[in-house]
Amino acid sequence: MATIYDVARRAGVSITTVSRVLNGGNVRAKTREAVERAIAELNYVPNAAARTLPSGVSRIVAVVVPDISNPFYSELVRGVQDVCDRASYGVMIWSTDGRAAKEASCLLELSKQRVDGVLMVRYLADQSVFRLFKSLEIPLVVVGRAPDEPAADSVGTFGTGKALRALIAPLVAGGRRRLAHLAGPEEAVVGMIRRQQYDAILRHFGLEARPEWVADGGFTREGGRKAARKLLAAADRPDMVFAANDMMAIGLIEAAEELGVRIPGDVAVVGCDDIYVAGLLRPALSSVRMPKYELGQRGAELLLERIANPSVPTRHVELEVTPVARESTMIREE
Amino acid sequence: MATIYDVARRAGVSITTVSRVLNGGNVRAKTREAVERAIAELNYVPNAAARTLPSGVSRIVAVVVPDISNPFYSELVRGVQDVCDRASYGVMIWSTDGRAAKEASCLLELSKQRVDGVLMVRYLADQSVFRLFKSLEIPLVVVGRAPDEPAADSVGTFGTGKALRALIAPLVAGGRRRLAHLAGPEEAVVGMIRRQQYDAILRHFGLEARPEWVADGGFTREGGRKAARKLLAAADRPDMVFAANDMMAIGLIEAAEELGVRIPGDVAVVGCDDIYVAGLLRPALSSVRMPKYELGQRGAELLLERIANPSVPTRHVELEVTPVARESTMIREE
Repeated sequence: MATIYDVARRAGVSITTVSRVLNGGNVRAKTREAVERAIAELNYVPNAAARTLPSGVSRIVAVVVPDISNPFYSELVRGVQDVCDRASYGVMIWSTDGRAAKEASCLLELSKQRVDGVLMVRYLADQSVFRLFKSLEIPLVVVGRAPDEPAADSVGTFGTGKALRALIAPLVAGGRRRLAHLAGPEEAVVGMIRRQQYDAILRHFGLEARPEWVADGGFTREGGRKAARKLLAAADRPDMVFAANDMMAIGLIEAAEELGVRIPGDVAVVGCDDIYVAGLLRPALSSVRMPKYELGQRGAELLLERIANPSVPTRHVELEVTPVARESTMIREE
Repeated sequence: MATIYDVARRAGVSITTVSRVLNGGNVRAKTREAVERAIAELNYVPNAAARTLPSGVSRIVAVVVPDISNPFYSELVRGVQDVCDRASYGVMIWSTDGRAAKEASCLLELSKQRVDGVLMVRYLADQSVFRLFKSLEIPLVVVGRAPDEPAADSVGTFGTGKALRALIAPLVAGGRRRLAHLAGPEEAVVGMIRRQQYDAILRHFGLEARPEWVADGGFTREGGRKAARKLLAAADRPDMVFAANDMMAIGLIEAAEELGVRIPGDVAVVGCDDIYVAGLLRPALSSVRMPKYELGQRGAELLLERIANPSVPTRHVELEVTPVARESTMIREE
């Protein structure tokens, strides 16, 4: 049976280089090809010795996200992967559905597996699982800091309230007064924050607050569609909707089409996140652009720094968001 | 420091139940809440003993996909997660960017971690890494079987050629003759297969084959946009394009908008996969609907069966695809 030495000999490289190729490290394309060819030709199976080369360190980080099928998180993970690729770290992804039990079991697994650090997208407002994470003493970076949580490196955003006001102001100037909210779940930090931003917008423009204009769409497209059906079928139909994320806004666009409600003619729509399809939808969706890729990128950088030097002081990075006005808010003055 | 016994006592349940909650198992919502409350109140940190409860089995499966930011794979992963949730298995996701080195390093990790089984979406045509996977003797299910690969349980699709003919026939009947192909990379199994299907379509309808009408878009939106710019700027511009996946078709739609090329007026477009946004794009994209969720679901079922009973004979499941005609192919006869 072929060994890593045979592979190295055939490829004309050192075993460290073979190991680096196997671990996804930085190797010139030509060298990588030679090593991969040697692996294939020798039908080489890495053995235990090879597995722990070069240093016995796993060089794996884990990313914990609530929902990998939401492009927000897959764009964020892309940023993590690009940074980790360059540093020869592998990335393991866990998608928890935003459920405490899944977060907890994921934490348990991470404590058993050999993982060098964790990038956790904070989802639940409840802190019990998060505290478990902290107590593991694995290097940890949090995306989306909640103000009350224990100290940990974090990457977050600022400016969402301002961006929302910029998108809603022309609608109010055009005569719209009835602003509804497609909300995230109450147990989610971001759901809570968006709801506060919605309330702040109502106050800012002196708009009426009505309980029936707030519907929980669970942050998913399907949930957004169901919640939007209720909002759009109400007797006193809202003429603007702020959706706490774009996936729910997509559900709203579908519901509007089903019900023959025109966007923005009857109802203007503002999403949040600016996922990659927002500009391609019919109508193109106005949204608040979250720096998704950069959140992952900066988060991974902080994490790798923390892994390299555990005694670095705690850092908090905040990235600015920007409003993106598209067709779904382009009304003529009424 | 609180133990699992303290948590069980406070929640009024057995330690097996606490363990099941921590491992994401099936527990009534009320019981789960009580356990989570007890964990939070006691600030409980699972210890090594608790970690190996109830049986020392990890109950983790890994899913290996080329690109988690492509909704095709995130919908597939959703199907895997739903099946695994019900069976109390955790799901770990690895996204390899379709690179042999990353597939190999991912394999190395899986051999080190405690993983009960692997669902691998076959990407590379080259079989060296795949052979490594097989040699690990971890239960393995492959999504997207290539005809020449070693025996393993697999889930695949059939009927793509037929679906494509159904979508292209009305275009040919309407006078279109110049069919281009936004291709996947040659090293990818699916890229190869789609290219063969493109060639078969040309033959079926007696259309001309021209090398400059085939451009590699790397299966990504950005790659699709770049490749489409070339196709659409060609002197003898194609009047139909078959994109090997929807992400590249989205890039094509963007390129067409930049260049002032009308879809379907100037160029009709057929995608492949029918990702969730296909019907919401402008223009709504005609596509071949792959049973993404079902591929993940059936794949996970096969894998859990294989884990439970390693001596089950090898199974191959094939799911049918269907054509979905939307605006991007709705031409008036010319």
